[in-house]
Amino acid sequence: MKLVRYGQPGKEKPGLIDAEGKIRDVSAIVPDFAGEYLGDKFLQKLARTRLSRLPLVRGRPRLGAPIAQPVNYIGIGLNYADHAAEAGAAIPSEPIVFFKAANSISGPHDPIIQPKGSEKLDWEVELAIIIGARAHYISERVALDHVAGYALANDVSERGFQIDRGGGQWGKGKGAPTFGPLGPWLATRDEIPNPQRIGLWLDVNGERRQTGNTKTMIFNVRKIVSYLSHFLVLEPGDVIVTGTPPGVGMGMKPQVWLKPGDVVTLGGEGLGEQRAEIIAWRRGL
Amino acid sequence: MKLVRYGQPGKEKPGLIDAEGKIRDVSAIVPDFAGEYLGDKFLQKLARTRLSRLPLVRGRPRLGAPIAQPVNYIGIGLNYADHAAEAGAAIPSEPIVFFKAANSISGPHDPIIQPKGSEKLDWEVELAIIIGARAHYISERVALDHVAGYALANDVSERGFQIDRGGGQWGKGKGAPTFGPLGPWLATRDEIPNPQRIGLWLDVNGERRQTGNTKTMIFNVRKIVSYLSHFLVLEPGDVIVTGTPPGVGMGMKPQVWLKPGDVVTLGGEGLGEQRAEIIAWRRGL
Repeated sequence: MKLVRYGQPGKEKPGLIDAEGKIRDVSAIVPDFAGEYLGDKFLQKLARTRLSRLPLVRGRPRLGAPIAQPVNYIGIGLNYADHAAEAGAAIPSEPIVFFKAANSISGPHDPIIQPKGSEKLDWEVELAIIIGARAHYISERVALDHVAGYALANDVSERGFQIDRGGGQWGKGKGAPTFGPLGPWLATRDEIPNPQRIGLWLDVNGERRQTGNTKTMIFNVRKIVSYLSHFLVLEPGDVIVTGTPPGVGMGMKPQVWLKPGDVVTLGGEGLGEQRAEIIAWRRGL
Repeated sequence: MKLVRYGQPGKEKPGLIDAEGKIRDVSAIVPDFAGEYLGDKFLQKLARTRLSRLPLVRGRPRLGAPIAQPVNYIGIGLNYADHAAEAGAAIPSEPIVFFKAANSISGPHDPIIQPKGSEKLDWEVELAIIIGARAHYISERVALDHVAGYALANDVSERGFQIDRGGGQWGKGKGAPTFGPLGPWLATRDEIPNPQRIGLWLDVNGERRQTGNTKTMIFNVRKIVSYLSHFLVLEPGDVIVTGTPPGVGMGMKPQVWLKPGDVVTLGGEGLGEQRAEIIAWRRGL
């Protein structure tokens, strides 16, 4: 299934994409895609529902992130060897864990707001894991049973805030509002037979910048979920972005940064596409 | 006012401590201490309430954290010059920002669970700021208007996870369940005339380990709140732990770590005291 949330920011309703690519309103079955409603019990209930009986959503509403605000929004750093090289960093011996502010999450086509003082705004196409069941001290063998599904993510990063001014910690440059575009949909895990064979790409103003495939991850999805569950409790609805393949602006020579008016498009096999325009922060946003 | 939450984990009710030190149930006025209910409107409503008319809570119930799970649980690193020295780190030129998992938060007297594989469990007494109003791009001048109040915090840290295995990022050693004891109460900001004159102390098994005062912070409360609001949006109910004074186990020669059976007590002027026993993780916790 492809799960979406549609409507104005903060007022999104849950929906499913039907065989014709149209949205069906499922709010009579689940109030939102959050917490327990991302567990197998409710996903199976949705799977048994005859979509043609559900209300068809008219028009082309805005899409929000396909899940509500998570408890934790976690990132894995430098998880592609070739990206570690372009960042001038060693290949990590175990997963590097950082946090994005949970309220940085945004819709897949929402504008990306360049913060005040930002001079090094960068892109990162990534595979996001959405947790479906609470996970604490779980093995790699059962890790995927705790995954609701997958989504396309842009781990938007301000390198000046993250690195030049971070004092070693990355969170400062990862958590501004709209730094977490997610979606367009959550592909339930049955839709993605092998999460380690997902092609990813990202363009800036129509020029290809990133091309990658999750098959070159250093730590795979099973490993990441199991590993994290040994350091904290993963809750249903939590988001894990799993690292970016090479081709970020910071790695280019000379370096290239996003500026207002730029358009970022990205996609992942089975995960759909995002299109976002960069706009400068102004009062009222 | 001193705000508390009492009852079993996940089922806490909001209360106020009255002049005799007893808890009054305020759940008829606010459903929980979270989000908008930490704003001035509701705090003023509580302040106008005659406490003697509210139900007295009998017995000595467990205390939870004085606020519900926050959107973001943020830490400021190395914010006391003498602690930076004992950690072998340079004095930061601007605040260092890290995140604790939002679900690491726990009650002030709850046991602290030593995670599997932990060998370097450490303590950190800190002043916690609790946000009362959404803050984005606010000046230092108005920063305290966005603060609901203050609480005592132990920023429990596993140094092996945080540093030896962190790959430079600290979050891995800061977010295990029970790593965020908070309380016993939230002192509303009118109770704390000067947040930069709060004495802090921490004992392990009755031996004094940390003594400090918020007057020696490198970046003060006004600065921290204003500063963070330039990198992310602070939401009502968000928690910011503001750094620890010297005397952590990592800084001792030889280093000292917490082990099951140890008892950590800590306090802050106007903020009350915590007492927590260390227990080893076991199945069912």
